[in-house]
Amino acid sequence: MSGNLPKKVQITDITGRDGFQNVKQWIPTEIKTAVLDQLAAAGIRKMEFTSFVSPKAIPQMADAAIVAEHMRTKYPEMELVALTPNLRGTQNAVAAGLKEVSYVISVSEAHNKANINRTHEASLADLEAIAKVSPELFINISLSTVFGCPFVGETPANRVLWLIRECLQRGAGSVTLCDTIGVANPVQVHAVVRAVREKFPDLRIALHLHDTHGMGLANTLAALEEGVDIFETAAAGLGGCPFAPGAAGNTSTEDMVNMLHRMGIATGVNLERLLGAVAIIREKIDAAITGRLASARTYSEFSFYSCKA
Amino acid sequence: MSGNLPKKVQITDITGRDGFQNVKQWIPTEIKTAVLDQLAAAGIRKMEFTSFVSPKAIPQMADAAIVAEHMRTKYPEMELVALTPNLRGTQNAVAAGLKEVSYVISVSEAHNKANINRTHEASLADLEAIAKVSPELFINISLSTVFGCPFVGETPANRVLWLIRECLQRGAGSVTLCDTIGVANPVQVHAVVRAVREKFPDLRIALHLHDTHGMGLANTLAALEEGVDIFETAAAGLGGCPFAPGAAGNTSTEDMVNMLHRMGIATGVNLERLLGAVAIIREKIDAAITGRLASARTYSEFSFYSCKA
Repeated sequence: MSGNLPKKVQITDITGRDGFQNVKQWIPTEIKTAVLDQLAAAGIRKMEFTSFVSPKAIPQMADAAIVAEHMRTKYPEMELVALTPNLRGTQNAVAAGLKEVSYVISVSEAHNKANINRTHEASLADLEAIAKVSPELFINISLSTVFGCPFVGETPANRVLWLIRECLQRGAGSVTLCDTIGVANPVQVHAVVRAVREKFPDLRIALHLHDTHGMGLANTLAALEEGVDIFETAAAGLGGCPFAPGAAGNTSTEDMVNMLHRMGIATGVNLERLLGAVAIIREKIDAAITGRLASARTYSEFSFYSCKA
Repeated sequence: MSGNLPKKVQITDITGRDGFQNVKQWIPTEIKTAVLDQLAAAGIRKMEFTSFVSPKAIPQMADAAIVAEHMRTKYPEMELVALTPNLRGTQNAVAAGLKEVSYVISVSEAHNKANINRTHEASLADLEAIAKVSPELFINISLSTVFGCPFVGETPANRVLWLIRECLQRGAGSVTLCDTIGVANPVQVHAVVRAVREKFPDLRIALHLHDTHGMGLANTLAALEEGVDIFETAAAGLGGCPFAPGAAGNTSTEDMVNMLHRMGIATGVNLERLLGAVAIIREKIDAAITGRLASARTYSEFSFYSCKA
């Protein structure tokens, strides 16, 4: 094992945002909150739980303010984050009482245009305005297509470094490196994470790895070896990107937690309760369960391997 | 990235054995050979393509001799291996003209009894007899439950080392370390492979990693970092073990080849043709396609990422 693996990893669950956002059929608000409640009961302490976005663009997120109210009231200790694509969404998130937003920009300008219909210049200008919304607002950047873009292919690492610098200069506080369409490979993850760390040694970075090609956990291992200790995952492997063809499924929270625990890395998450959230999704939401563990655990072997880390 | 990754990996495709063996409905011989022909066309140069086993125990393998005749005649240059659980199966494999067999023994004696109904002592005695069947016969050991057993939990590494030594003393020429039920984690893979390499530095070892918990490619990465350059995989992620509850699916040949090529590691396998084999399986065989790539590739992004390594 190269490097020193972190002893503890923070799981930022994004079921409520990246997961639900990609479900076509409307999920009633009480089903959304039932899943989020179960994730909270499992010990998730940070969630990107909704997106403040035009309901015309993504109807599934139309109840963002109601879900935010539920979460803020019920879990005052939890770190609650909403994704926003623009100034208006950020204003709405702040009005809903949130202290952190994830502002999304794609490293690939072609994807940025397809996803949020603007150039890099326009996205960065908006970020400047967003940074002025509230002095207390923490801005994470959800950096999309860090490893590859469905429209233009592999992403040059120097474009990633360039865009991070531009964002930091405009008030961003942390960055999530997103493999939006799940095409990163472990060699690339090592290289990109190392380059980002070398250029921005004090920057807090998270990884968001889709499992489109089955490499989600292999890429996680590569990132762990580089010292990354924050990962964004979605229960049941829900998710994708409505404007990125081929982006089927996040690395599932339960498969990630299971691997980490087996590796002796603590997450603070209770796996049995986490699988309870997957059970609600299976029963109530019309979406494929792509995480592996929820199928495997019906077998007797699971009990032998239930890890407490 | 720790260590030096191998520049080239040998894929031993086991679709014909571990894959087909776990399909309940009879697969007509001509469908079996159609899949194997496509795998050969894709550049697979070593196959564990059938099992010489009692048709009462595994009816799906009843046409082993016919498939062997097809493969031997059509692919005289290919390394052809059959799995055998006992002396009789080995005699039948040799009679069918094979020069290599994989003899299966579980490190967990409880699993050995459940799988092939014998003690370690009886399995090892049989191995002695098998080694005398033909002076030209090469014997690989398919070492099951190397990382964990569905009946007794995690496998102690010293039992793995003990059993390898016993097998080598009785004429075994190489060993495949099998994660039969897909519960290994990358830390364990590093530790076990390193222990085996230290104890038996000249031994040729392969890894056989089920994807039950989604860790197949992460464990592959760990093994690559330890210098392992032979992996057993099945197209479409077919496979499992009929006597190991929870053993759903091998790491798929196509997901493995895709990751290796993206990492710059050569396999000699053509990914497009390999996906042709998956297409035959999808159309003609009643089994779940658990490999990810075959679903992902319908999207436009695939063409951007088609790797030639």
